[in-house]
Amino acid sequence: MDYKTILEDVYASVKPLSNVGRVADYIPELAKVNPDKFGICLNTIGNDVYSVGDAYERFSIQSISKVFALAMALSVKGESLWKRVGKEPSGTAFNSLVQLEVEHGIPRNPFINAGAMVVADILLTSFENPAEKYLEFVRTLCGSNDVDYNDQVARSERETAYLNAAIANLLKYHKNIECDVEEVLRLYFLTCSVELNCHELAKAFLAFANHAEPFSHAGIELTRSQIKRMNAIMQTCGFYDEAGEFSYLVGLPGKSGVGGGIAAICPMRYSVAVWSPRLNSKGNSVMGMKALEELTTVTNESIF
Amino acid sequence: MDYKTILEDVYASVKPLSNVGRVADYIPELAKVNPDKFGICLNTIGNDVYSVGDAYERFSIQSISKVFALAMALSVKGESLWKRVGKEPSGTAFNSLVQLEVEHGIPRNPFINAGAMVVADILLTSFENPAEKYLEFVRTLCGSNDVDYNDQVARSERETAYLNAAIANLLKYHKNIECDVEEVLRLYFLTCSVELNCHELAKAFLAFANHAEPFSHAGIELTRSQIKRMNAIMQTCGFYDEAGEFSYLVGLPGKSGVGGGIAAICPMRYSVAVWSPRLNSKGNSVMGMKALEELTTVTNESIF
Amino acid sequence: MDYKTILEDVYASVKPLSNVGRVADYIPELAKVNPDKFGICLNTIGNDVYSVGDAYERFSIQSISKVFALAMALSVKGESLWKRVGKEPSGTAFNSLVQLEVEHGIPRNPFINAGAMVVADILLTSFENPAEKYLEFVRTLCGSNDVDYNDQVARSERETAYLNAAIANLLKYHKNIECDVEEVLRLYFLTCSVELNCHELAKAFLAFANHAEPFSHAGIELTRSQIKRMNAIMQTCGFYDEAGEFSYLVGLPGKSGVGGGIAAICPMRYSVAVWSPRLNSKGNSVMGMKALEELTTVTNESIF
Amino acid sequence: MDYKTILEDVYASVKPLSNVGRVADYIPELAKVNPDKFGICLNTIGNDVYSVGDAYERFSIQSISKVFALAMALSVKGESLWKRVGKEPSGTAFNSLVQLEVEHGIPRNPFINAGAMVVADILLTSFENPAEKYLEFVRTLCGSNDVDYNDQVARSERETAYLNAAIANLLKYHKNIECDVEEVLRLYFLTCSVELNCHELAKAFLAFANHAEPFSHAGIELTRSQIKRMNAIMQTCGFYDEAGEFSYLVGLPGKSGVGGGIAAICPMRYSVAVWSPRLNSKGNSVMGMKALEELTTVTNESIF
Repeated sequence: MDYKTILEDVYASVKPLSNVGRVADYIPELAKVNPDKFGICLNTIGNDVYSVGDAYERFSIQSISKVFALAMALSVKGESLWKRVGKEPSGTAFNSLVQLEVEHGIPRNPFINAGAMVVADILLTSFENPAEKYLEFVRTLCGSNDVDYNDQVARSERETAYLNAAIANLLKYHKNIECDVEEVLRLYFLTCSVELNCHELAKAFLAFANHAEPFSHAGIELTRSQIKRMNAIMQTCGFYDEAGEFSYLVGLPGKSGVGGGIAAICPMRYSVAVWSPRLNSKGNSVMGMKALEELTTVTNESIF
Repeated sequence: MDYKTILEDVYASVKPLSNVGRVADYIPELAKVNPDKFGICLNTIGNDVYSVGDAYERFSIQSISKVFALAMALSVKGESLWKRVGKEPSGTAFNSLVQLEVEHGIPRNPFINAGAMVVADILLTSFENPAEKYLEFVRTLCGSNDVDYNDQVARSERETAYLNAAIANLLKYHKNIECDVEEVLRLYFLTCSVELNCHELAKAFLAFANHAEPFSHAGIELTRSQIKRMNAIMQTCGFYDEAGEFSYLVGLPGKSGVGGGIAAICPMRYSVAVWSPRLNSKGNSVMGMKALEELTTVTNESIF
Repeated sequence: MDYKTILEDVYASVKPLSNVGRVADYIPELAKVNPDKFGICLNTIGNDVYSVGDAYERFSIQSISKVFALAMALSVKGESLWKRVGKEPSGTAFNSLVQLEVEHGIPRNPFINAGAMVVADILLTSFENPAEKYLEFVRTLCGSNDVDYNDQVARSERETAYLNAAIANLLKYHKNIECDVEEVLRLYFLTCSVELNCHELAKAFLAFANHAEPFSHAGIELTRSQIKRMNAIMQTCGFYDEAGEFSYLVGLPGKSGVGGGIAAICPMRYSVAVWSPRLNSKGNSVMGMKALEELTTVTNESIF
Repeated sequence: MDYKTILEDVYASVKPLSNVGRVADYIPELAKVNPDKFGICLNTIGNDVYSVGDAYERFSIQSISKVFALAMALSVKGESLWKRVGKEPSGTAFNSLVQLEVEHGIPRNPFINAGAMVVADILLTSFENPAEKYLEFVRTLCGSNDVDYNDQVARSERETAYLNAAIANLLKYHKNIECDVEEVLRLYFLTCSVELNCHELAKAFLAFANHAEPFSHAGIELTRSQIKRMNAIMQTCGFYDEAGEFSYLVGLPGKSGVGGGIAAICPMRYSVAVWSPRLNSKGNSVMGMKALEELTTVTNESIF
C-alpha cells in the first residue's frame, strides 16, 4: 500500500472527529482560524512527498518552533547546554512554576515554556541578530524563502502573557536568564509566531528523520548523534503532559503546537506534518494525534 | 564488526568506571553483593547470544520485575488498566508522594513504586495464585525452570519498607488498592526479589524486542500493538528520574533495577541485559548505563 | 451582664445554624451521634461555672486530646521537644503529606496529625504506661474519675485510618518515630477517643487559662511560661486550616476536634467548652465557632 | 519596675547578640545601613513614651508598611476584602509561588508579598492618589509631617525584583490584579520605602493597641472589631515563616520588616517598636526579636 492511499485512509478515519476539541482561544489571533481545516503531508527520506487536505495552507507553528530553537542552541553550546536546562519529562502541568521553584530555576526540559525561554536567552547571547538567524534557519530547513514571522500574533501573545512573564521573571531571579526579561519574551513569542504549511513543516523535519546526511542548514550544524538525541528529547518531552500518551499511541518522536500542528519523524524513513486546529484538553490537536496513531498502526512503522 | 567483539570493546571502555557509584545498601541482603561484578548479554532476534563478564551469575532484578508484572496485568485488563494507573513520565523523585496526593491516588505510571503496587493489586484479584503464576511466567520467558524468588530479600525489604508502606496506605486511602495493604506489599516485594542472570534476563526481554512473533508465554498473551506500547512505556518511564537521560544517551526502551541490572531492547534486532551493582545517585547502574550508551554509539542502532 | 445570660443569648443567636454542616461520618462510631446536640460551658478562673444546653453529655474529644498529649510531652522534654516537631502553622490541608515529605519528616506543629503522632511516640518512650498516665492526667485536669477511653471508637478509627497509617509510616521512614508504627497509631487513636462533657472540658482547660497558679496535675508540671507558650501554639495552630479565621473571628487560643467540640481560653479570665456535632468543610463545629465568636463580641473579651 | 529601666535591662541583655545575623543585602540601598544600630521605643496607651538607643534614627520600614496598607484597604472594602486575599498563615517560604499556583491566585494572607500586592491593587482602584493618601495616613498615625518615601530605595528594589515581578504577573494571570502590573509593583515598593524611627513607629502602632479610642486617622476609619481583627492577623501572619516562633517566644501581635524593624502591640497597654538591622535566616531582626522576648518575659505581659 502506498503512502498516498494510506494518508487518504487516515483522513477518512479521523473525519468523524472533526467536531471534537476546541481551537486555542487565549490568543485572539489564533482564535480566528477556521477550526475545520485538516492537512497532512508525509515526506520520505527519498524525498517523495504525499499530502492530503489543506496541506498548503499556513498556520502558526507555535511550540513546534522550540525544536528549531533547540537545534540552534545545541549547535552553538553542545552538551554544556544541559547545565542550564534539563532533559527530563516534565510530568504534569501542575508542575510548571512549582517545579521551577523547587529546582531553583533549572527548567525540566527545553520544550516546556521555561526551557524554551532559556534557549531564547542563549540565542540572544550567541547570535548577532538571533531573530533573523532563526528565520533564515527555518527558511533553509523547509526550502521556502517567503516563510515569515507573524508579528501581530507575537505582539498579541506578549500582551496577555502574564503566566509566561511570571516564568521569565522567575528564571531571571534564579539567574538562568542573562538578557533582559522583555527581550527574551519578545524573541520567544516571535519564534512561536512563524507560519508554515504541512509541506514546509514536513520538509523542515526531514533533517531530523534522515541522519544519514549531514545536518548543516544555514550554518547550523549538528552531528548524527546530536540529531538522534534531539529526537530522543522530542520523544520524551514533545507533547506537554501527553508525552507518554503520544509515545504509547503513536510511537514516533514529534512536537506539537497549540496552533494545531504536529510534526513527527520515523527515523530513516519519513517525516510527517499534520494540522487541525481543534485541540484536546492537554493542548494537542485531536485529529492530528489520531491521524498519526492511524498512520503508525496501518504502516506498522513506529520506533518500537 | 560482530556483537561479540563489540561487547568486549564495550566492556573495555566501561572498565575505568568500575569504582564509581555505590551498591544499594538500604536492603541488607543487597548490600552483601560483590560490587565489582559486571556482566552483559545480547540476544538477537535470530537467537544468537553473545555475552561478556559475569553473565551467568544471578542477581536481584528488583524493579525490572515491574515489566513482567505489567505484561500480566495488561494481558488481563487491556486498555481498562489505564483507569487505575497513568502512563506519563513521573518527573523527579520530588513528586513521589506529592504527586500521588495531588492526583488523588492515581500513580503516574506502572514503573514507579506506587504504580507497581496497583499492578500487584490487579494481579491479586486476577489470578488464583498470583505469586506462582508470576514465577511461571518469568520462567517461561527466560526458559529456566529453576528461576525463583529470594524470600529472604523479599522479607528483608518489607521489614524496612516504611516509605513503600506509606505509599500503599495512601493508595488504599484513595481506594486504588482493593486487597489488603500487607498482601499487596508482600506480592510486590516478592516479585522484586526474583533472581536472574544476564542470559536469562536478555532472553526474557527478547519477547518484547521481537514483535513479529506472537507473545504467548505461560498463558499470558499480548498483541503486537500491546508489545510495542509496553516498549513505549519503558522508553518514557523506565529509568526513574533518568528516563530522559537514558533516552538521550542510549536511545533504547528499557528498565533498570536497584540490584544493578538493566534490560533493554532494540526492536526487531536484539534484547540486551547488563549487570553491575554500583549505582549512580538516581539509582541506575553506572557501568550498565555507560555500557549501553557505548553499545548504541558503536552499532549506531538506537530507535532514533 | 452576667455570663449565664450571655451564654443564653449566645445559644439563641446560633440556633438558626442548627441545620448547617455535617457530622463527621468517616468514623462509623461518630456518625451515630445526634447531630442536633448543643452544649456550652464557661468556667471562670474564680471557679464560677455557667452552662447552657447539653453541657453534661459526653462526646468524643478527638483532636482536642492533642493539647493534653502535648502538655505531657512538653513537661518531660522541655524545649528539646521542638527538635522533632515544629511550632509553625501548617497552612492548608494541601500540605499534609507534601509538607512532611518536603521537610523530611518534621511535622509543622504538634496539632496536625503527623505532629501528634510524634508526640505519641514521645509519650511511649517517656512513660511506663502512657495510656494509663494520659487517662490519669485528663481525669485530674477535669476532676472526673470516670472519664475514660472509648475503645470501640479507637479501634473503629484504626481500621479505616489509611491516611494516618501513611503518615505514620512516612514519619518512621524519616526516623522521627522510634517505636513501632502500630503502637504509635494505637496510642494516638486511644487518646483521641476520650469522652468528656462540656463541664469537664472547660474544667480541664482552666489549667491553661489560669497561669497564676502552678500547673501540676497528676505529676505533669509546666512553668507559667510553658503554659503561655502552649496557648500561643493553640492560637496559631489549633484549628487546622482555619487557625487564621478562628483567630480573626474569635480571638482566643483554643483547639477543636471532629467530634464537634471546641475548647478555648481567655487568659486569666475563663475557659470555655462548646459542643455541636455538625462541622463545616474544614472540620470545625459550625455552631461552636459561631458561639465563641458571639461570646467574644458580646463580652468584648478577646486576647487582642 | 518602670518601663525605662526595663528597656535598659532589655538592651543590656540583647547586646551579646550584636554581631549575630546579617543585614539584608539584596537591596543595595539597605546594605549601606550601619549594622550595629539598635533602638527601642515603648509607647503606653496613657501616652508615656520610653526609649533606649538609636530610637530617633529613621530606617526603612519595608514590610511593616503592609499593616498600614491593609488598614486602608480594610477601611474601604470591609469584609469583602477577604474574597481576594486569605487570612491564614502561609506556612513556610517553600509555599510562596507554589501556594499561589495551587490556590489559583488567592494569596494566603495580606502580609506575604503576594497579598500585599493585591492590597496595593485595591488602594490603586480605591483612592484618587493612593501614594499621597498612604503617606498622609502614615504621617497622621505617627504625628510627623516630614515622614516620607525613599524613592531611591523604591527604585532600587524594583530594578532587581524579579521574584516579586513573577508573583505580580502570576496574580495578574489569575485576574487578582486589576491594574497594570508595573503600577502595582511601583506602589508596593513605594509604600515599603517609607522611613520611620522607633518613636514614630511606636506612635503609629498605638492606634492598634488602644481600641478604646475610635480609629480615625486621615480619614481612614476602622471599628474596634476591625482593629482587633487586624491584630489577630498580625499575630498569625506577621513574621513570615516565624509567626509561630514569634507567637511562642514573644506572645504579642506584631509585624517585622527586612530593614530590621519590628512593631508590636500589647492590647490596651502599649505599643513597642524596635530596630536592629542584622537579620536571622528567616528575615527577622535578631536583636529585635530577642528584645521583645525579654520584654514580655520580664513584664509578664503578653496576650496569653
